[in-house]
Amino acid sequence: MTDDREQLQNTPIGVFDSGVGGLTVVREIIRQIPNEKIVYFGDTARVPYGSKSKDTVTKYSKQIVRFLKTQNVKAVVVACNTASAYALDEIEKEIDIPIIGVVKPGAKVAAETTRNGKIGVIATEGTINSQIYSTYIKKINENINVIGKACPLFVPLVEEGLLVDPVTDEIAMRYLSELIDRDIDTLILGCTHYPLIRSTIGKIMGENVALVNPAYETARGLKELLEREDLLNKKEAGLGENKYRFFVSDGAEKFKRFANSVLKYGILSAKTINIEEYSVKK
Amino acid sequence: MTDDREQLQNTPIGVFDSGVGGLTVVREIIRQIPNEKIVYFGDTARVPYGSKSKDTVTKYSKQIVRFLKTQNVKAVVVACNTASAYALDEIEKEIDIPIIGVVKPGAKVAAETTRNGKIGVIATEGTINSQIYSTYIKKINENINVIGKACPLFVPLVEEGLLVDPVTDEIAMRYLSELIDRDIDTLILGCTHYPLIRSTIGKIMGENVALVNPAYETARGLKELLEREDLLNKKEAGLGENKYRFFVSDGAEKFKRFANSVLKYGILSAKTINIEEYSVKK
Repeated sequence: MTDDREQLQNTPIGVFDSGVGGLTVVREIIRQIPNEKIVYFGDTARVPYGSKSKDTVTKYSKQIVRFLKTQNVKAVVVACNTASAYALDEIEKEIDIPIIGVVKPGAKVAAETTRNGKIGVIATEGTINSQIYSTYIKKINENINVIGKACPLFVPLVEEGLLVDPVTDEIAMRYLSELIDRDIDTLILGCTHYPLIRSTIGKIMGENVALVNPAYETARGLKELLEREDLLNKKEAGLGENKYRFFVSDGAEKFKRFANSVLKYGILSAKTINIEEYSVKK
Repeated sequence: MTDDREQLQNTPIGVFDSGVGGLTVVREIIRQIPNEKIVYFGDTARVPYGSKSKDTVTKYSKQIVRFLKTQNVKAVVVACNTASAYALDEIEKEIDIPIIGVVKPGAKVAAETTRNGKIGVIATEGTINSQIYSTYIKKINENINVIGKACPLFVPLVEEGLLVDPVTDEIAMRYLSELIDRDIDTLILGCTHYPLIRSTIGKIMGENVALVNPAYETARGLKELLEREDLLNKKEAGLGENKYRFFVSDGAEKFKRFANSVLKYGILSAKTINIEEYSVKK
């Protein structure tokens, strides 16, 4: 192995999300490939993405990828379902390093999990309207029936901290009753915020419905991708070497507090940057 | 009167908000000064402002004012409490036309309304943290006690259309019970979305608490300002002359639907623009 290759393997993985939700993906990456360095960007100034148009989400995602490239990342994880749904194809055209979204890995494991061929997807308006999960699942097995349901209040409820609360129960009942009526046996948590209210969702759906968290499968897919490309970091990066670095477009202190509660790991610093500077004039 | 003055009087008023909430202010302006043309900008790509930092809200507000100036507006209304709280002073330095926010007029009428000297303010996190209502009210009467309460879930509940709903009742009860305990007799609806759930708020607060909607006072203040500066449009602009024009940073069609439900007036068109183009490099 040359020094050059070793140096490349030692560069970080870039991960981005519209805000804090992508930290559930970071948590899985740290668990599954603990040697890796990570640079995270959360677009906290422009969150949420779920109600925005494809054009806008694509524009924002491109700016973020341009920023991540300035951090010399060896691969990019799009840890946001809406950005994966709307922008992954466009971003792939722009960069020459491996890139992975959360939708494809989630779709794959759901297709493998269902027994009765009925899969539910809960996600933002944008992800549901794109029908991206359905498209991927039907490529694997065209006989599977995919039922999507947008849940726009879940993200504000999570951000307000109402993870276990009668109001969250009531809203979840309304959103999920349609999926119960349709007799699904597998439910994809198609937004990175949703694993944080997994217990509420699980209680309502019952134990016969398998909940799929794409974060887990994405981290596994990332590991395979890095192995294939000979990009895995062979030696563990010490915490002193800037192992995990966090950037946001607004409110670094607030982000730090939330991140520490999700990651159970002491985040030393988060830095606010001006993400609009990374736009390209047409 | 010269032709020049008449031409100036015939130019539009610029109104902006983080999204659709400012339409409750537009509604009042149309009611009170129906001759006026209006150019509205809603920052639907970057909504909400209520949880963002002062720096970010100021940067966005400056971009919007630069855009409104390209539309030859004769005055600017900051129809967003958070932007009024954080950015009004900075914007005033940038432009040489009259500008009015929603906070000062709301504070003034609340100070005139209270009998027991206890005023409540419900608003976004940003507006509450800025303590702007308290600052203005205490300038009028330093003996008045101002109690602020951030209500972060109200905006998503309104945008989800749950204007009359048990969930909105429950959340409102939690937010407002503290204000009831503090014996306020006047409550400022310190976010332009909140008048849309006025009936829920009124029911909980009871008939002995006066609800102040700054939108009404802002339109009145605007009328006085235009009179003072001899800028009122003397003749009614016909609808055919582009009387009301709407611009957004994302999702023009969705905005049009919401706007038509608030204004009870047929909006012919809304246009999406790239607001980031109006930023100034340092």
